[in-house]
Amino acid sequence: MLKDFYNYLEKINAYTTSIALMEFDLSTVTPKEGQANLAKSIGILVGEKQSLLTSAELKGYLDYMEKNFDQLDDFAKRTYTLVKKQYDDNTKIPKDVLVKYKELASIGESKWLEAREKNDYSIFAPTLSEIINYSKKIADYLTYEESRYTRLIQEYDEGFDIKTLDNFFNEIKEKVVPIIKKVKEKNIEFNNKFITKNVDIDKNKILADYLIDYLGFNKNKGFLSESAHPFTLTLCPGDVRITTRYEKLIPSIYSIMHEVGHGLYEQNTMKEICNNSILAGGVSMSLHESQSRFVENIIGRSPAFAEVLYNKLVETFDDLEGLTKEDLYKAINKVELNFIRVNADELTYPLHILIRYELEKELINGDINVMDLPKLWDDKYEKYLGIRPKNLKEGILQDIHWSAGLIGYFPSYAVGTAISSQLFYYMSKTINIEECIMNSNVEEILNWLKVNIHQYGKLLTPKELLIKATGEDFNPKYYVEYLENKYLSL
Amino acid sequence: MLKDFYNYLEKINAYTTSIALMEFDLSTVTPKEGQANLAKSIGILVGEKQSLLTSAELKGYLDYMEKNFDQLDDFAKRTYTLVKKQYDDNTKIPKDVLVKYKELASIGESKWLEAREKNDYSIFAPTLSEIINYSKKIADYLTYEESRYTRLIQEYDEGFDIKTLDNFFNEIKEKVVPIIKKVKEKNIEFNNKFITKNVDIDKNKILADYLIDYLGFNKNKGFLSESAHPFTLTLCPGDVRITTRYEKLIPSIYSIMHEVGHGLYEQNTMKEICNNSILAGGVSMSLHESQSRFVENIIGRSPAFAEVLYNKLVETFDDLEGLTKEDLYKAINKVELNFIRVNADELTYPLHILIRYELEKELINGDINVMDLPKLWDDKYEKYLGIRPKNLKEGILQDIHWSAGLIGYFPSYAVGTAISSQLFYYMSKTINIEECIMNSNVEEILNWLKVNIHQYGKLLTPKELLIKATGEDFNPKYYVEYLENKYLSL
Repeated sequence: MLKDFYNYLEKINAYTTSIALMEFDLSTVTPKEGQANLAKSIGILVGEKQSLLTSAELKGYLDYMEKNFDQLDDFAKRTYTLVKKQYDDNTKIPKDVLVKYKELASIGESKWLEAREKNDYSIFAPTLSEIINYSKKIADYLTYEESRYTRLIQEYDEGFDIKTLDNFFNEIKEKVVPIIKKVKEKNIEFNNKFITKNVDIDKNKILADYLIDYLGFNKNKGFLSESAHPFTLTLCPGDVRITTRYEKLIPSIYSIMHEVGHGLYEQNTMKEICNNSILAGGVSMSLHESQSRFVENIIGRSPAFAEVLYNKLVETFDDLEGLTKEDLYKAINKVELNFIRVNADELTYPLHILIRYELEKELINGDINVMDLPKLWDDKYEKYLGIRPKNLKEGILQDIHWSAGLIGYFPSYAVGTAISSQLFYYMSKTINIEECIMNSNVEEILNWLKVNIHQYGKLLTPKELLIKATGEDFNPKYYVEYLENKYLSL
Repeated sequence: MLKDFYNYLEKINAYTTSIALMEFDLSTVTPKEGQANLAKSIGILVGEKQSLLTSAELKGYLDYMEKNFDQLDDFAKRTYTLVKKQYDDNTKIPKDVLVKYKELASIGESKWLEAREKNDYSIFAPTLSEIINYSKKIADYLTYEESRYTRLIQEYDEGFDIKTLDNFFNEIKEKVVPIIKKVKEKNIEFNNKFITKNVDIDKNKILADYLIDYLGFNKNKGFLSESAHPFTLTLCPGDVRITTRYEKLIPSIYSIMHEVGHGLYEQNTMKEICNNSILAGGVSMSLHESQSRFVENIIGRSPAFAEVLYNKLVETFDDLEGLTKEDLYKAINKVELNFIRVNADELTYPLHILIRYELEKELINGDINVMDLPKLWDDKYEKYLGIRPKNLKEGILQDIHWSAGLIGYFPSYAVGTAISSQLFYYMSKTINIEECIMNSNVEEILNWLKVNIHQYGKLLTPKELLIKATGEDFNPKYYVEYLENKYLSL
């Protein structure tokens, strides 16, 4: 029976793999006139997979496993838990509600785009209202103990809840806002002539290739490709694809490092789990983000890496226009009060998320109204960052997430970044991280992440994983300390 | 009911698309450690597709259509015929026989490889015997009127039979062998220093890009990629992918032209059929090969194209080592007595196929024995080409086809080439082909092919298509005439 169950999961995995590949292809190389056929095929296979996920056959396996739970090994227990959750999610919500929600997400995206273009929130607001209403409905179908918003968060982050997040974001408000103020008063200057230049794409590619080797990305288990928006996509731990777009040099470098962080997490699942695909890969959005942020920020924005990168720039480019190592370090750690989240620096980033978290929570709790969002958004930017958006594209209409039905997703960006600091703190107890970076010995760092995080895939819950790796559950203090130590000494 | 049937075909098409994409990916970019997962996923989805192709639901649609055949439009009639044939093929042959045949093909390939390496036919012979036996069995399950071998041929070439092919290959024997003799007596010489040089891959790529534009390959409907063995793969008419490998310049150019010929056929199916996927794309192996050979030989090895290519070489490379236009024309039309089919020139090519045709036919008819093949093969090479292979790699073990279970496939290579001459003859009546090539006006040629061949997809049978395009059924005389005219005037 257990064997049949695993065979059944392998069948589901075949669908998952083929759908993922079609999506990767669509985002990277599919010719224009072939896109509709591929999109349609994805839709059909998603439907077929959905039938497998809600079938009576699957129910039979799950019932059997529930009855014999105590006899199962840890792998099977966790597999059962995750598949059961998926089955429940897919069967508790009536099909027409799910279909409607998908429709809303699709309409939402186009309305959002139109509203952005015309700087007219009223084009998007009615659909957003419906999306919020349906999100609530879905939380209700899924059932919850504590609150609707917690239930939505847990779709992305197992084990997290409003209490934990309130506590986290309160720390951000109290501690990070003052750091920003102090850094801004310092008025740090540097030579940014080379940094802002457009560079030869071929040289950018040479640098990209150097970076993914430097960071230990396994080229027998994946590759770097190009797409309009960078992403990481996994077919299996042996096939992890990351993408970038080559624009300005520095953003392209850091976007590659970010995706490599995601990619390493996916590549390094232990062998026992690779063959048992549902447990392979990152366990939650926050844990995933902790890995991308670790590589992008903890490694990538460190003094040691600034030196490594500087030496590589000297080697690759003819003329750095007077750029010094110190300039480069200041450039990659420049703090700027910016409206746009995706362009935010390491220090101001969590405030962007704080704003979205507060608004999301109040929307789902029914404390605020969709029509009031633009003003509330701008007020919060003024309150926390001291700047006020001049138009909707800089304000409420900058992110695609809500329009695509992703409610409860934003917090993971900040939580993940905070977790990377917690890991950094504990890793530093046994590893001289700066020295590893300086000596191109990232392997030692990577190995720590592999042993403590990557290898487990989804076998442990996020909480179990963090406690096993650091001896404690999620604790935001390491994040605040990291930011203080780094930015007050700049 | 008809609408349900078409929806059902769309579902099958989603599987076909995703399987094709996974195969394309495997042949081009899949990282080493991801290949097993992708291969396994292909296997599972092929099985799922197979279930759809043999389902009671499909049988229901087919029964309905059979009863109402006269009321169907031409598209539906042809769709019915083709799907019914597929259904019959898949249900007439017992499942265990199909599974066994797939196994044999897979074992066959590895035994063939091993036998090649060790130059030991006895390693491969037992499996080949079984493959031949199972091919006969399969022909028996499929049922046939005329002969087993004809039935096997028709898996690849609707409407063709032993009688037609005997007649065709007799012409080859009688007429082409003497031409080769005459050409070899002439002892044509030319400067081949540049031709045999290794060239910069980047320049080769520039040339490749120029070629696919020159030939009218639509880049909104496909692209050129790299793989170990060149192929064309279609996801739909809007997504046709061709591949090449960059080795020596001239082989790479002609392999690209060959694949572009296949690609154009796939891209140019009429709109009405694109939305009705089973009728899209080439109707038979021979017709497909006629298009690749038309581009590769009729266009690519013409005096006019030699001039176009020469000018492009001058533009692209610094030093042609004294190569003249005349040298180039002679080089691309060099006749050589060669053991290896895939390296054969235009003139000797059909003799390679003749040899395989005669042996295949006798194998299936039971007139010869698998153990005697190496000697029979060598004897035929001596008889028709005057050369005798020195080892098995040059002889019986050179082609993968039989080991992969492809019995009855070889003739289409020669028949397709012959059809390209027939099309050339009739096209010449209204179009000055040399002038079009010279003036980079391939569009006019392409348009003739589009109107007369490409647009129909599988809507017409090969025979209907040929009669519509040329006023007569397949006629080998145009091929012989073409070869005589061209090679006796060299």
